[in-house]
Amino acid sequence: MKRDQDFHDELWGDTLHEECGVFGVFGHDDAAALTALGLHALQHRGQEACGIVTTDGSNFYNKKALGLVDATFSSANVIAQLKGRAGIGHNRYSTTGEAHIRNVQPMFGDLDFGGFAVGHNGNLTNAMTIRSALVKDGAIFQSTSDTETIVHLVARSRAGSVSDRLVDAVRQIQGAYSLVVLAPGMLIGLRDPNGGRLGEAHVLASESCALDIIGADYVREIAAGEMVVVTEKGVQSSFPLQKAPHRFCIFEYIYFARPDSLMEGRSVYAMRKAIGAVLAQESPVLGADLVVPVPDSGVPAAIGYAQQSGVPFELGIIRNHYVGRTFIEPTDHIRHLGVKLKHNANRKFIEGKSVVLVDDSIVRGTTSRKIVDMVRAAGAKEVHMRISSPPTAHSCFYGIDTPCTEELLAHKMSVEEIRNFIGVDSLAYISMDGLYRAMGEARRDPSAPQFCDACFTGDYPVVLTDFENNKTGMVAGSLNSCGAPVKRKA
Amino acid sequence: MKRDQDFHDELWGDTLHEECGVFGVFGHDDAAALTALGLHALQHRGQEACGIVTTDGSNFYNKKALGLVDATFSSANVIAQLKGRAGIGHNRYSTTGEAHIRNVQPMFGDLDFGGFAVGHNGNLTNAMTIRSALVKDGAIFQSTSDTETIVHLVARSRAGSVSDRLVDAVRQIQGAYSLVVLAPGMLIGLRDPNGGRLGEAHVLASESCALDIIGADYVREIAAGEMVVVTEKGVQSSFPLQKAPHRFCIFEYIYFARPDSLMEGRSVYAMRKAIGAVLAQESPVLGADLVVPVPDSGVPAAIGYAQQSGVPFELGIIRNHYVGRTFIEPTDHIRHLGVKLKHNANRKFIEGKSVVLVDDSIVRGTTSRKIVDMVRAAGAKEVHMRISSPPTAHSCFYGIDTPCTEELLAHKMSVEEIRNFIGVDSLAYISMDGLYRAMGEARRDPSAPQFCDACFTGDYPVVLTDFENNKTGMVAGSLNSCGAPVKRKA
Amino acid sequence: MKRDQDFHDELWGDTLHEECGVFGVFGHDDAAALTALGLHALQHRGQEACGIVTTDGSNFYNKKALGLVDATFSSANVIAQLKGRAGIGHNRYSTTGEAHIRNVQPMFGDLDFGGFAVGHNGNLTNAMTIRSALVKDGAIFQSTSDTETIVHLVARSRAGSVSDRLVDAVRQIQGAYSLVVLAPGMLIGLRDPNGGRLGEAHVLASESCALDIIGADYVREIAAGEMVVVTEKGVQSSFPLQKAPHRFCIFEYIYFARPDSLMEGRSVYAMRKAIGAVLAQESPVLGADLVVPVPDSGVPAAIGYAQQSGVPFELGIIRNHYVGRTFIEPTDHIRHLGVKLKHNANRKFIEGKSVVLVDDSIVRGTTSRKIVDMVRAAGAKEVHMRISSPPTAHSCFYGIDTPCTEELLAHKMSVEEIRNFIGVDSLAYISMDGLYRAMGEARRDPSAPQFCDACFTGDYPVVLTDFENNKTGMVAGSLNSCGAPVKRKA
Amino acid sequence: MKRDQDFHDELWGDTLHEECGVFGVFGHDDAAALTALGLHALQHRGQEACGIVTTDGSNFYNKKALGLVDATFSSANVIAQLKGRAGIGHNRYSTTGEAHIRNVQPMFGDLDFGGFAVGHNGNLTNAMTIRSALVKDGAIFQSTSDTETIVHLVARSRAGSVSDRLVDAVRQIQGAYSLVVLAPGMLIGLRDPNGGRLGEAHVLASESCALDIIGADYVREIAAGEMVVVTEKGVQSSFPLQKAPHRFCIFEYIYFARPDSLMEGRSVYAMRKAIGAVLAQESPVLGADLVVPVPDSGVPAAIGYAQQSGVPFELGIIRNHYVGRTFIEPTDHIRHLGVKLKHNANRKFIEGKSVVLVDDSIVRGTTSRKIVDMVRAAGAKEVHMRISSPPTAHSCFYGIDTPCTEELLAHKMSVEEIRNFIGVDSLAYISMDGLYRAMGEARRDPSAPQFCDACFTGDYPVVLTDFENNKTGMVAGSLNSCGAPVKRKA
Repeated sequence: MKRDQDFHDELWGDTLHEECGVFGVFGHDDAAALTALGLHALQHRGQEACGIVTTDGSNFYNKKALGLVDATFSSANVIAQLKGRAGIGHNRYSTTGEAHIRNVQPMFGDLDFGGFAVGHNGNLTNAMTIRSALVKDGAIFQSTSDTETIVHLVARSRAGSVSDRLVDAVRQIQGAYSLVVLAPGMLIGLRDPNGGRLGEAHVLASESCALDIIGADYVREIAAGEMVVVTEKGVQSSFPLQKAPHRFCIFEYIYFARPDSLMEGRSVYAMRKAIGAVLAQESPVLGADLVVPVPDSGVPAAIGYAQQSGVPFELGIIRNHYVGRTFIEPTDHIRHLGVKLKHNANRKFIEGKSVVLVDDSIVRGTTSRKIVDMVRAAGAKEVHMRISSPPTAHSCFYGIDTPCTEELLAHKMSVEEIRNFIGVDSLAYISMDGLYRAMGEARRDPSAPQFCDACFTGDYPVVLTDFENNKTGMVAGSLNSCGAPVKRKA
Repeated sequence: MKRDQDFHDELWGDTLHEECGVFGVFGHDDAAALTALGLHALQHRGQEACGIVTTDGSNFYNKKALGLVDATFSSANVIAQLKGRAGIGHNRYSTTGEAHIRNVQPMFGDLDFGGFAVGHNGNLTNAMTIRSALVKDGAIFQSTSDTETIVHLVARSRAGSVSDRLVDAVRQIQGAYSLVVLAPGMLIGLRDPNGGRLGEAHVLASESCALDIIGADYVREIAAGEMVVVTEKGVQSSFPLQKAPHRFCIFEYIYFARPDSLMEGRSVYAMRKAIGAVLAQESPVLGADLVVPVPDSGVPAAIGYAQQSGVPFELGIIRNHYVGRTFIEPTDHIRHLGVKLKHNANRKFIEGKSVVLVDDSIVRGTTSRKIVDMVRAAGAKEVHMRISSPPTAHSCFYGIDTPCTEELLAHKMSVEEIRNFIGVDSLAYISMDGLYRAMGEARRDPSAPQFCDACFTGDYPVVLTDFENNKTGMVAGSLNSCGAPVKRKA
Repeated sequence: MKRDQDFHDELWGDTLHEECGVFGVFGHDDAAALTALGLHALQHRGQEACGIVTTDGSNFYNKKALGLVDATFSSANVIAQLKGRAGIGHNRYSTTGEAHIRNVQPMFGDLDFGGFAVGHNGNLTNAMTIRSALVKDGAIFQSTSDTETIVHLVARSRAGSVSDRLVDAVRQIQGAYSLVVLAPGMLIGLRDPNGGRLGEAHVLASESCALDIIGADYVREIAAGEMVVVTEKGVQSSFPLQKAPHRFCIFEYIYFARPDSLMEGRSVYAMRKAIGAVLAQESPVLGADLVVPVPDSGVPAAIGYAQQSGVPFELGIIRNHYVGRTFIEPTDHIRHLGVKLKHNANRKFIEGKSVVLVDDSIVRGTTSRKIVDMVRAAGAKEVHMRISSPPTAHSCFYGIDTPCTEELLAHKMSVEEIRNFIGVDSLAYISMDGLYRAMGEARRDPSAPQFCDACFTGDYPVVLTDFENNKTGMVAGSLNSCGAPVKRKA
Repeated sequence: MKRDQDFHDELWGDTLHEECGVFGVFGHDDAAALTALGLHALQHRGQEACGIVTTDGSNFYNKKALGLVDATFSSANVIAQLKGRAGIGHNRYSTTGEAHIRNVQPMFGDLDFGGFAVGHNGNLTNAMTIRSALVKDGAIFQSTSDTETIVHLVARSRAGSVSDRLVDAVRQIQGAYSLVVLAPGMLIGLRDPNGGRLGEAHVLASESCALDIIGADYVREIAAGEMVVVTEKGVQSSFPLQKAPHRFCIFEYIYFARPDSLMEGRSVYAMRKAIGAVLAQESPVLGADLVVPVPDSGVPAAIGYAQQSGVPFELGIIRNHYVGRTFIEPTDHIRHLGVKLKHNANRKFIEGKSVVLVDDSIVRGTTSRKIVDMVRAAGAKEVHMRISSPPTAHSCFYGIDTPCTEELLAHKMSVEEIRNFIGVDSLAYISMDGLYRAMGEARRDPSAPQFCDACFTGDYPVVLTDFENNKTGMVAGSLNSCGAPVKRKA
């Protein structure tokens, strides 16, 4: 059932992927159902697997499954078994190797104080180093997930309360993380010092759209380095972790988050439109007839581009929303048709026109090339590509699924070479300062960048311990082709 | 697992539904795979079930399944079992009762000349009457599907060739139908005298988007009353059925067909934009800030409306594309959230604005009301609704799944009452002549309407035998609440 | 998933197999559950598939499944869906080709008088001939089962009542059959003129053990040629079919029936013991230390042999009762171990002993040879085989699954050659007259044999129409290697 | 899906159950397939779940499943994924609560030296005490199985080699155990000082029948307290554990083991016959007509009884071998029929006879009573029960699934009361010394009993730490109704 990269790209888009979505609720009779709905709203953040853990204060209940949320959690039966008034949930995205149910979050341990469950959005950059030390000391890991490291650190902490033990654990880890934790009588949300996002006190979620779906009011984001402990007594906020400059992932605005979500108080949709408008100012197309989004992620930027430029916005490419995960093709003839499983050019509208395609990013370039081919085959006179992010030239180690740096088209080619590779008449990316301007900043501050933009700049805000150890041979383990440490597979 | 109508409407839209999609291919080594792809492209026409029958000339192979095409037919294994160079396929939509695999098409019979399979898009209006006579004569039906009637009529025909027997059978049936037939050594496409659509000679499909996905060239539509027989010797066209005025279903343009399809040579997307433009001319909104489509069907008309009116087009409502079929809600609190499983208002963009919502139709009005509520709750100052069809006041008996006439909002209420019911500041439908104008006609010709518009006008082009018999008590059988005959359930 | 014959023999025994078990009940609130229990008791008669049809007088309910009865019908849910106070059920055994759910009985048709379901034990010898004529006349068959022929004949009968139409149909068929029929308001049992068996009035079953399991009292067998119609008004018996000499299948006594069943008033267990005793008289073994049954079917005859001869009865071969249907072996080394999946010699008891093995029959001889090998490898000094039937030299066309005559060891070899082939020190079969003597007859009457013993004698009591037609080329269809007509596969 | 005890007893027998079967193989290309076959032969020791772990020296592969071995491990696909030349497997029996896949053995941990898997037959009597201490120290348990304790003890051991760490771990545990262990490059078998059983060097198994099925030669049992380490270099034996008097479980001879197995060099079948013979000497039945075993376990003892007494052995009760695990009954009427799902009296043979029933034990007495009822209903003149074990009056804490002492009939009633309860004319158990005599001993040595017979005598050879702690309140945890500590459920 191996799909080669090309075919995968055609189906799933040759784009970056977010790792996960997390959700937590405390003090509601429908805790499990609300968590299921929250995960459903966050489905775009991860489609491989999902899980929910609930507690009635003493016992813990959990259900994990591969696949989409509503395949498992739409069953009233399943929900009824997840008892109690508090719960956390997790959506997982993963690209490499086989999915294994034991890697599905939330991770759970039966510790001396009772159950302890954690859902984690992000990647730890010293997980292998810590894991190795723990195993030497007799810890038994059941998964290959980074997140289990946190459970073991809490299990072994000698600190007093559950939240102190969690702080103790988190102080030892590095990387990007937003955690939701469920322990006897409490829900904890903890944001990494470098940025992250969780909703309000009694409901915590990766994005505000998960609050909307359950009708919750948006209160505020948890601040960088903040820990929020929700118990029957109320909400307690503290800042137990070392302060670090706040750098929120800028790609959330460009692509990952749902357009109806708020991030740091900003409307994601508005930001995307603003990016499109800046792009139109920076890189107009003379004599363009149509602005056509590459569906669905390019739509808001294309609207922005169209409104700014005055060129009509049109759905020149139609997406089939029924595309599943597993369309396996039997022959070469059939395989060649792959990209059409998802997209079809609106021939009558494109024929003879000069088309501005707007997309959010180019990763390997394989899908972009096929979409351009399809638009040309539909009779376009000219095809111009506008990208609503700067060139993606560096891998992400904090939770975004990227190819290794060497496979990134922008790492290997100049913009002109990329233009030639994907076969367009002109190609333009938004500039770095243009991007920051669209975000409401005057410009990027190189000494203290306002966002994490490492995928464009290579300027990584968090030390990459496993990666460094690996280079010096300190940690055994396999390497991926980028030389970055990879997790052992089940 | 019963969902009440309200909840169903929230999830699936309170709109009309097409019955089916058909596809056929003759003379290709990948017949089964191409049929699977064609059905995938036609998935929007029916999601309940799908089936494929192939033949290698003597043996026939079939596979039927409930659910989406790619759940079953993406398996190379399944495709490999469907041997031969000719195949037909069918997507089924159904709303009432339980789905049963034996009702899934294509229907197959082992007749004296060999296998005979038929896929049918449309509804027969004298199926019960014919079936009753056949059963009296010893015929044994295995399904409750109309389509099986055709198989029995062919089985009993004394005509000579397979195509003559098919004509013999079809002359006895009334209603709307597009048939694809597979028999030893031949593929047959047959269009009902009142309209229908099939693609080109060697590939036949409900819509042209199914030709695009397999890279086929579009040649022409089969004309009304035309029968096309494809054999190894080539394509033979004839007009064996009584001529009747051609009246193509106008709702295909408004809603059913995919926007990238051609219908009778017209671009569906262009027609929808034209309808939106006429609507903007007929019913402008003074001081409007945004034109917002009700996703996804309202998008092209909203673009047309926005371009005509100069009011900006914005994605003010975001759709969650992961919504499944079965989200069952355990409590009243949760159930109330239903509409949000699919749609969320883009609050930051709507707040304080005067919003023009564009949708394709209002059926019962339940979803419209909830969407309006959601938009108001998001802070809209004014909400104006524009509908890209005339009021739907009559049931369809030709294959479209509609509520019975009594449940149609436009049957019971004036436009002003509907405006009040769904809670908008203003409401306007496109006029009947406006609709025909958008379609490129001068106006509707009342003596010989250019399209079937019975759902708006009640002017039914085909006699409703079963319905009439029923009124006079001639045919035993249950009645639905509209008094229309319904099929017996398995 | 093909198993070669050898491996199949090792697992399932190289023996003959009965086709089916039937069960019917009328007038009980637990009709479906009783039918499930009855089928469970008759499980030894067929393990491939099972089905139940019930009726509440007007509606019919059915459930069919591949596999064992309790895999499907132990679910309270399934039983609850089979409504009504009357039901029939069927267990199916089949050896050739793939099982297909549409061939699972009872066969059902929606006829003009209402539902009609039939379960059939036996084989029709003119089914192909009749089917061919029906198809020419426009009948559409849905299965490849003989039994569907009966449904079509009833559908087309012009006789008055349901039971008259059934008689009309049955008069046209030839072969061996015991039928249970369910129609609106009635249960019908019908025994073929050549023998068969059904239980008492309100409960009908293939064997009396199915009456025991539900606590029913045994009343009498239905006589040859008798039809019993059970309605709310009571039981009506008639003899509508032409009288024919009664010849009950003698192999039921030897092997097929459960030892706790009564057949024609005789205890099956007692008959088997009697056969063993006659065998001991006819073919004693000098100096034997142990009588060892080949489990499980050889046990009663071995007890009879042991008691008659005075040689101790011992379980020298232990059977693993957990053997499933599907143990597929990956390598030659492993495959070689096949017979041990089911049987193991009790080494300590066999070592150095002279062993009398008792088995019910030798078909191809493959398993017998391996069992003898196993017993020798366990250290037996001498191995003597005694068979509780005469040599099986002819195929059965009435419902018993036998290899074609050419594959039967006794068709190809003399007893001495068989002895040599299976590798025993001595081999003896019971004599034909000995067998009849054990059954309580003076001897076999060659002019009017008391039982059907065609598998030993080739003296077939019913004309083999399809077989004969086939020879003369009248009927198209495939032939099996014996030249006997075979059913077309799905 | 709850079955009450009565109904469970009817289906499964009101008897004692063994916990598990273990199997290990080292140095064979078909390691996984051989392990599957071995588990198949040991299926009688546990039917709830099964698992296999294999290793190719560095990587470990595992597959666990609920249900029978051949439901999962007959797939060539599954076997192919279990790579490597060494493997261990486990069959699990369990009676309480829901089965959970995470409790299925072998238990596996990824330790610092590599993979470590263990399969365990027996019960630990201080598992809760040790587990509690480990959790306090930060260990995270994933299951509720005793066996996981061993994995954690090995993980934390500071001893040098894998085998030294295993010894270190095992020295801390108490109870009955036979272990098979798989670690990088080695297979280890370890027998508890109080008895147990494993086969020969390169193949280890609970019973010799698992050697027979794969064609392995029997070499010897591992001695009490012996550890056998198999590596590429060969087999190394040592006695690292404190010597303790060897007391093998006597119930293995009476009931648990397969009759074709050897235990401590004795034939289980021969021992059972000998017990039957002693029983016939001690407790003859005057004027008996038949000796009838309660199938299947009573058969060898009944043969022994019959041969000694001269009363004919007959299969007076027929067992349906198709009985599944899940026959759920919908109504009271049906439920009452429960025992007949499995057993049916052979009426014609029993009528008017004086019957000696031979069974292996009476636990709660519920099934015995129903079987006696059934035999009487079949017309027996007299029913005498003979039991091939002494009265079972004490619970087992070493791995046998017994009701708590208070539920054991022999704990609450005298033999005469039991006779009355089950409704027989006479009842006799074998005497304790008679049992030892049948085993080849002069008599039971009360100061140093030759076997573990605690279930008859209450003389427990191993200290019951958890049970004692529990009494003194030292260990938190739930208690079963016997006051014995029970494992926490998942």
